[in-house]
Amino acid sequence: MDETVSIVLFSGTDDKLQAASVLAAGAAALGKPVRILLQYWALDAFRADRISADHGLCPEAGEAGRAAVDAASKAGVADWADNLRTAKEVGDVEVQACSLSMDVLKLKQSDLDSLVDGVQGVASFYINAGEGQIIFI
Amino acid sequence: MDETVSIVLFSGTDDKLQAASVLAAGAAALGKPVRILLQYWALDAFRADRISADHGLCPEAGEAGRAAVDAASKAGVADWADNLRTAKEVGDVEVQACSLSMDVLKLKQSDLDSLVDGVQGVASFYINAGEGQIIFI
Amino acid sequence: MDETVSIVLFSGTDDKLQAASVLAAGAAALGKPVRILLQYWALDAFRADRISADHGLCPEAGEAGRAAVDAASKAGVADWADNLRTAKEVGDVEVQACSLSMDVLKLKQSDLDSLVDGVQGVASFYINAGEGQIIFI
Repeated sequence: MDETVSIVLFSGTDDKLQAASVLAAGAAALGKPVRILLQYWALDAFRADRISADHGLCPEAGEAGRAAVDAASKAGVADWADNLRTAKEVGDVEVQACSLSMDVLKLKQSDLDSLVDGVQGVASFYINAGEGQIIFI
Repeated sequence: MDETVSIVLFSGTDDKLQAASVLAAGAAALGKPVRILLQYWALDAFRADRISADHGLCPEAGEAGRAAVDAASKAGVADWADNLRTAKEVGDVEVQACSLSMDVLKLKQSDLDSLVDGVQGVASFYINAGEGQIIFI
Repeated sequence: MDETVSIVLFSGTDDKLQAASVLAAGAAALGKPVRILLQYWALDAFRADRISADHGLCPEAGEAGRAAVDAASKAGVADWADNLRTAKEVGDVEVQACSLSMDVLKLKQSDLDSLVDGVQGVASFYINAGEGQIIFI
């Protein structure tokens, strides 16, 4: 039995990052190991100098969606980075930057927020995932 | 052996909803239990007052894609909501609204189409998913 | 134990196609069978007459993302079609076109690049996937 939940996090808009953080935190709360591999625009969103910035929403959100997300934020819904920080405190959650995406975006690990535990290749990601679920977001 | 197919349905454009409905219907036809969790813009698309509306396509569809989808619709290809209704009749398909997304969009279950069976948290979703596949769309 | 990695490839932008090709090549290099089902805009990107064209990036890439991807391409990073060709040479990788999407886009197999091995329905896709991971991109 392999309970690990592995997430390939590709998208870097705040709505998808929020969905990812909720799925990661939920799995961690159930005691499942969670392994996250950051690619492309998600990796860009974890840059230390912009992790708290506005990363926009999917185009389909529209104005009504934007307003709903802003209202939830003002009402105190935790943002995705905070969700992940909490999940890492209570559970076994690891966040790795995809080495190929690091090359494309010309990033070094020191450019990234401390939520990121290291840099990983795709082979290691699969080995850690074992037979557990893989979710691409 | 866990045959359940679990789908986190996040996107609310008609092309992705169609892809989700085809994957759900295909699994149901094979006798697999199907569990769908609606988040964000997919949840919005299941509002009773707009489930039949035009929800647009992914930006990458372009004009040629838009024309192809419209032509298929005119030629009688069933839409995603009809696919899901049929799948629920022939198989074991459950559609749940994510409680966190309900809060963000300020929705009550009575706002949603009758395709939606209830409101669920992420923990229940994982427990029902068991060791089966999880697909994020 | 089912090691097959199955990918439903829906998106047709070059960044997501690249992510898919890297996940496919990585799994193949580890000796895992890889099964890819092409739907909608991904299927369109495999048309023989445009597989080498520019398929754009996700809207969230922005100008900085566009510049980074272009620079990586000039620096010799293999494109997604080349990655898949190599993966098919070294491993057990099969690419199938979804029959429903073929109908929507009015395509015949002769319209598609030789990377595509055939046309498949969703039922066959699930049967080949077995209990292995399914990744929707």
